[in-house]
Amino acid sequence: MQLTDVLSRIDQDLPEATERLLSLLRIPSISTDPVFEKACDSAADWLVNDLLSLGATAQKRTTPGHPMVVGHIGEGSPHVLFYGHYDVQPVDPLDLWDSDPFDPQLQDGPNGQVIRGRGSSDDKGQLMTFIEACRAWQAVHGSLPCRITFFLEGEEESGSPSLIPFMQDNKAELSADLALICDTGLFESRIPAIVTTLRGKLGEEIVVTAAGKDLHSGMYGGIAINPIRVLSRILAGLHDDQGRITLPGFYDGVPPLPDSLRSQWAGLEFDHTAFLADVGLSHPAGEQGKTPLEMIWSEPTCEINGISGGYAGAGFKTVLPATATAKLSFRLVGQQDPLKIREAFHAYVHAMLPPDCTVSFGDHGASGASLMSTDHPAFDAARRALSDEWPGNAAYIGCGGSIPVAGYFKDITKMDAMLIGFAKDDDQIHSPNEKYDVESFHKGIRSWARILAAISA
Amino acid sequence: MQLTDVLSRIDQDLPEATERLLSLLRIPSISTDPVFEKACDSAADWLVNDLLSLGATAQKRTTPGHPMVVGHIGEGSPHVLFYGHYDVQPVDPLDLWDSDPFDPQLQDGPNGQVIRGRGSSDDKGQLMTFIEACRAWQAVHGSLPCRITFFLEGEEESGSPSLIPFMQDNKAELSADLALICDTGLFESRIPAIVTTLRGKLGEEIVVTAAGKDLHSGMYGGIAINPIRVLSRILAGLHDDQGRITLPGFYDGVPPLPDSLRSQWAGLEFDHTAFLADVGLSHPAGEQGKTPLEMIWSEPTCEINGISGGYAGAGFKTVLPATATAKLSFRLVGQQDPLKIREAFHAYVHAMLPPDCTVSFGDHGASGASLMSTDHPAFDAARRALSDEWPGNAAYIGCGGSIPVAGYFKDITKMDAMLIGFAKDDDQIHSPNEKYDVESFHKGIRSWARILAAISA
Repeated sequence: MQLTDVLSRIDQDLPEATERLLSLLRIPSISTDPVFEKACDSAADWLVNDLLSLGATAQKRTTPGHPMVVGHIGEGSPHVLFYGHYDVQPVDPLDLWDSDPFDPQLQDGPNGQVIRGRGSSDDKGQLMTFIEACRAWQAVHGSLPCRITFFLEGEEESGSPSLIPFMQDNKAELSADLALICDTGLFESRIPAIVTTLRGKLGEEIVVTAAGKDLHSGMYGGIAINPIRVLSRILAGLHDDQGRITLPGFYDGVPPLPDSLRSQWAGLEFDHTAFLADVGLSHPAGEQGKTPLEMIWSEPTCEINGISGGYAGAGFKTVLPATATAKLSFRLVGQQDPLKIREAFHAYVHAMLPPDCTVSFGDHGASGASLMSTDHPAFDAARRALSDEWPGNAAYIGCGGSIPVAGYFKDITKMDAMLIGFAKDDDQIHSPNEKYDVESFHKGIRSWARILAAISA
Repeated sequence: MQLTDVLSRIDQDLPEATERLLSLLRIPSISTDPVFEKACDSAADWLVNDLLSLGATAQKRTTPGHPMVVGHIGEGSPHVLFYGHYDVQPVDPLDLWDSDPFDPQLQDGPNGQVIRGRGSSDDKGQLMTFIEACRAWQAVHGSLPCRITFFLEGEEESGSPSLIPFMQDNKAELSADLALICDTGLFESRIPAIVTTLRGKLGEEIVVTAAGKDLHSGMYGGIAINPIRVLSRILAGLHDDQGRITLPGFYDGVPPLPDSLRSQWAGLEFDHTAFLADVGLSHPAGEQGKTPLEMIWSEPTCEINGISGGYAGAGFKTVLPATATAKLSFRLVGQQDPLKIREAFHAYVHAMLPPDCTVSFGDHGASGASLMSTDHPAFDAARRALSDEWPGNAAYIGCGGSIPVAGYFKDITKMDAMLIGFAKDDDQIHSPNEKYDVESFHKGIRSWARILAAISA
């Protein structure tokens, strides 16, 4: 009866819960761009007030970057720590949005209502599923079924520079029996899933500089080294013709995929063709002979995420630029060591530099891959609870993205993490027109209510 | 006596002439950017009024792009046509300018006063040297020593799309005995020079498209083709390890440098080391075994003038972009055929495209190289006149830049062109903090007064 009443309350309160989410989505908390520093602070304030309003303690905690929000509620066992992030990705190219990214809208879609706006899925909508589940428990029973610590950060989309020091400084307060993280998706948009493997990430920026100033390409073209050309050669040399990454030692620590995992993943009904077709592609890039799931969950990558140099505006400018810049990210698996790979990358770039060129590097984070231990009984309990809420049975899956905090929980506070989320493949996270299905939000809240009941039983 | 009075008048009138130039420089006539369309129109109006004020006829003539200015003054022989352009390059990166590019300033520099501002050297300051020389002749003698047609365009920095049709439509009015073009520089900033060879230019833009939208590099990295990586491979493959351009047939029509020209150029006192050192470089890029002058004046190039794709702002965004773009220019010599090279470039790009990628091309102009015939007696007369004005003897030189109009004059109106200009190597044309020395302006005006006297004698 305890759970049934909470689920009913969640159903009744959905309009108000949605309004609360819309209110949070209106705050443009883009963490990577200093222009939005105050907005990040406002989002933290909003969350503190929201936690206070449901009966938790909560504080905004300063860091050298954007603040953390830490709160507590409930008693008993187990003690779980919930992690989410209130910062969002930049919104450009803005002209590809059908509406203002920070004026969120409830819209009718082909698969039901959606909440449209930056952060609706990644991660404000997701983190609010947990908070709303707690609100419902508290409203119905005046208490939570177990002890909960909330830990919400505002720098996830910009490499989490303050996360490790903050966790180290607040290790006791942030230690619990288990971490819960809501920043992942349903498998194939339908099957509830607990992510047990995550790729790591190394973020790198390089600026190649040649002449002391921009030059005229008629006067200096051919005789003065062109940094865009140098950069192109550097980037083009990172993969061989088979799509393998060429950095020496890059594949050290990449484990062979265990047969058990391969067969478990093969058992998932995944439409490899549709996965690519949905985004207008038909040919898997990268190495041959691996399924897309294997590629995404168990293979490392090197991607160029941004490049710029010279004149890229309307028309043409015959400039030979002084500098050219690229941002790259490596996704890592197994025991690949991000710092060794950084070293190999820097050495490679230096070796590719012709005379008269210099390079500077920017650090955009480095974290290894994570493999969760599913021994904790909460994993099986959560899997059953998710299976009760959704039409399909919950699965253990991998994730191609990087959620470094899962590794930090393991390293610093010795917690395993359960990564459970309700995003769908078409949520367009990090892209224009991001959305979150109302179904994800509603059943997400219900899922957490069930999970809290199941793990506390 | 005729010339002496004109030169005195020029000296006396310099402050007013400078004011007139500053007034023209205040008009932000950036032709390549549609935002500045009205400014281009205003610059044309300004020139019409300026020509009228000195006693010429003048009209603004519409084109599908920015207007032409055509004017006439004087009688007798020879009939010369003067060409200049009133449009200017874009000003970004704006933060590297020490002052507003369109609030021109007279400043003291290490080598005397300079006029600082976009277009001061390229080409408003230069074209005004000729107009001011005409103004002085007219003021002193009530007439010019020969017949002059002014032909001023506003699309030179954006590929001159209207130039050929306008010249064809107005062939009779624009035909003369000889063209004068003021858009080049002093040799080594000290030696007056007449340019007799010009490189041609082919301007190309490519947009590589892969997925139908921007993707998350955690979710799709490694499995979805990355257009920045494709573009990097395309660009990196355009040169071999020796710096030679790899397009099939690219070097067809590149003549061996005649010994006479090689020795003439070798006789110029050119400091190859200082040429590079001035811009912070020490190693000539490109093919080995050729002097910088030979490289710039007689070798073709392929340069990347701009590149963009993905997220290049502050911080980091793990985007796998849908498109990536580059702008390139080829400088051409001898009989290289720009349209054949365009064809080879397009074929090369198509051949480099992996499955799922498409490419679109933008046309930023195509013109062959020009070689002037110096048989017309005006060449020697002008060379003597320039030698009288400046400390050193005037030289015939080459130019690495492209002034396609010189070729059009030859093709359409059967005129040879004398390219004479007073820009200095440190004028920073096309770059932040462009300037024109007051000495260039003053002695430039005096030079044209002398040349008009010499060729009319």
